[in-house]
Amino acid sequence: MKKIAIAVDAMGGDFAPGEVVKGCIIAAQDAPHVDIILLGLHDILKTELEKHVAPDTVKVEAASDVINMDEEPAWAIRNKHQSTIVVGNKMVREGRAQAFVSAGNTGAVVAAAILIMGRIKGISRPGIMVRFPMRNRDVYLIDAGANSECKPENLLEFAIVANSYLSSVIKIENPSVGLLSIGEERSKGNDLIKDTYQLLERAKLNFYGNVEGKDIPLGTTDIVVCDGYTGNIALKLSESLAMEFVTELKALASSSLLAKFGGLLLKSGLEKMRKRIDAEEYGGMLLLGVNGVCVISHGRSSSKAIRNAILQAISAVEGGVVAKINEDLKGKPYLYV
Amino acid sequence: MKKIAIAVDAMGGDFAPGEVVKGCIIAAQDAPHVDIILLGLHDILKTELEKHVAPDTVKVEAASDVINMDEEPAWAIRNKHQSTIVVGNKMVREGRAQAFVSAGNTGAVVAAAILIMGRIKGISRPGIMVRFPMRNRDVYLIDAGANSECKPENLLEFAIVANSYLSSVIKIENPSVGLLSIGEERSKGNDLIKDTYQLLERAKLNFYGNVEGKDIPLGTTDIVVCDGYTGNIALKLSESLAMEFVTELKALASSSLLAKFGGLLLKSGLEKMRKRIDAEEYGGMLLLGVNGVCVISHGRSSSKAIRNAILQAISAVEGGVVAKINEDLKGKPYLYV
Repeated sequence: MKKIAIAVDAMGGDFAPGEVVKGCIIAAQDAPHVDIILLGLHDILKTELEKHVAPDTVKVEAASDVINMDEEPAWAIRNKHQSTIVVGNKMVREGRAQAFVSAGNTGAVVAAAILIMGRIKGISRPGIMVRFPMRNRDVYLIDAGANSECKPENLLEFAIVANSYLSSVIKIENPSVGLLSIGEERSKGNDLIKDTYQLLERAKLNFYGNVEGKDIPLGTTDIVVCDGYTGNIALKLSESLAMEFVTELKALASSSLLAKFGGLLLKSGLEKMRKRIDAEEYGGMLLLGVNGVCVISHGRSSSKAIRNAILQAISAVEGGVVAKINEDLKGKPYLYV
Repeated sequence: MKKIAIAVDAMGGDFAPGEVVKGCIIAAQDAPHVDIILLGLHDILKTELEKHVAPDTVKVEAASDVINMDEEPAWAIRNKHQSTIVVGNKMVREGRAQAFVSAGNTGAVVAAAILIMGRIKGISRPGIMVRFPMRNRDVYLIDAGANSECKPENLLEFAIVANSYLSSVIKIENPSVGLLSIGEERSKGNDLIKDTYQLLERAKLNFYGNVEGKDIPLGTTDIVVCDGYTGNIALKLSESLAMEFVTELKALASSSLLAKFGGLLLKSGLEKMRKRIDAEEYGGMLLLGVNGVCVISHGRSSSKAIRNAILQAISAVEGGVVAKINEDLKGKPYLYV
């Protein structure tokens, strides 16, 4: 097997390039069989690298431009050919890398991946998949925001690509698929959901039926399918609620001497809990349905988050998710079986 | 001022009639100036009442039928004229009660209120408003599930009725209104949201602009407006996440002797936290836009939840929310100012 290379946007995210470079080095230490290619301004990256003892699997490729967080994605991609996001996606298209990891402008990463890597044949709209680490099981929600306006066919495709991912990379056999709605009955939900129900029940998937908002934390199904508007709101709401909860707990555990002592006794347990709900532990979100692996990391990514995003990209490449999606879509076996 | 009467569905909810009757008695003790009218089977309610020392402001009105939780709302309302839900709404229409409180079939309560109390002139679709008790402030989200498919005009109406409620009942002057989207910019969101943005910015409201999922826990605005599909998912997701946290924390605080001791030291603080996220403390959801006060309580309502729902109904009646909505809508001053 050809050596795997992961292209990393060293200029993307709030703490780039420092934290990104650091994350790449840790990832390179943890995955010595993989090449990690830093994309960005050559001199800046060299200087950053010199601060550490980097394995020689960490390489630098020049990309002289950066797409900013607030730039209009389509415009930026058309006009910034030398940007890290464009260069990274081109490397994947040309087979010089198998995955692209970025904590930069999400809209630009999605648009560039679709335009440059291209969509997998049979997929009209790639979707962003995110993992909710719940007590009962990991729940994979798709679409977390790539498509704010969807058709039933798009939601069917989201279910298909997530199913391919979970079976090939996470090794979950026949993962269960829930459709996000506001009641169990097939008559519940908006028009999009009701129409999607009819497609999903005829698809060759382990379709559970409708799930509700409560079922995400409960871990009722492995996969939860919804449009990108709803999925993005569910994601941001959950992250924010978890943060609020931790903040409140911290304030509580330092409110008095006794409470401080109580917090101390609970510390290791609380730390485990925090870790479970901490996005940093989980790397990034995957854009599924494009011809390559594309991991979108949080804008606030620390070196740990970047490291985890890179390892996640390696798993996806090694699990062969793109080939699996291609295979699963052949002859459209999912439609109307 | 005429004496206020609150009609309560004594047969609605998982713990009816026992917990409902108990809740009514507590509410009657806390609000001795109000009549509380229990609706249900006369003999059963009399027996329940005899278990307690009930103030004589608690009265019984016979309603010989019950709409079950799984019954199709429209059918049930047409066919069960003697059901608690139909009778209660009729009492409000006839002026014999000013509010109806039920923990029964939500769909049936909403449909009956719209059909029997009737919509306020100028309102095409009443919406369910729910309070999120956040650290920074209470956030009122509307619609939490009455309308799974919405038009921009419906969302504008939700904003108007919530604004009327917050200013007249909660006494918040000029409450801020956020539109639930997936980015701050007016170009973000699905078609419904983008079109609604244009209506809201021309309305005579304190329109903040778009808010994201994270802004609900952060308490960025007083009011958050969205369609009922999205709102219901946000509500159920939040309730469920909060429950999961509490469960996990409890398990943690009993995992070892030291942890137990730690939990004990934090107990009063944790109890305060639990109280804040406990739906029972907050009564129910309000259906706004109908000609009367309609409070929908959780199916799992205990006596405490019922008591709080009744007090909430009394506040809404005393705050004159229906008159305020009528006044605010006169001459459609909200449209295109």
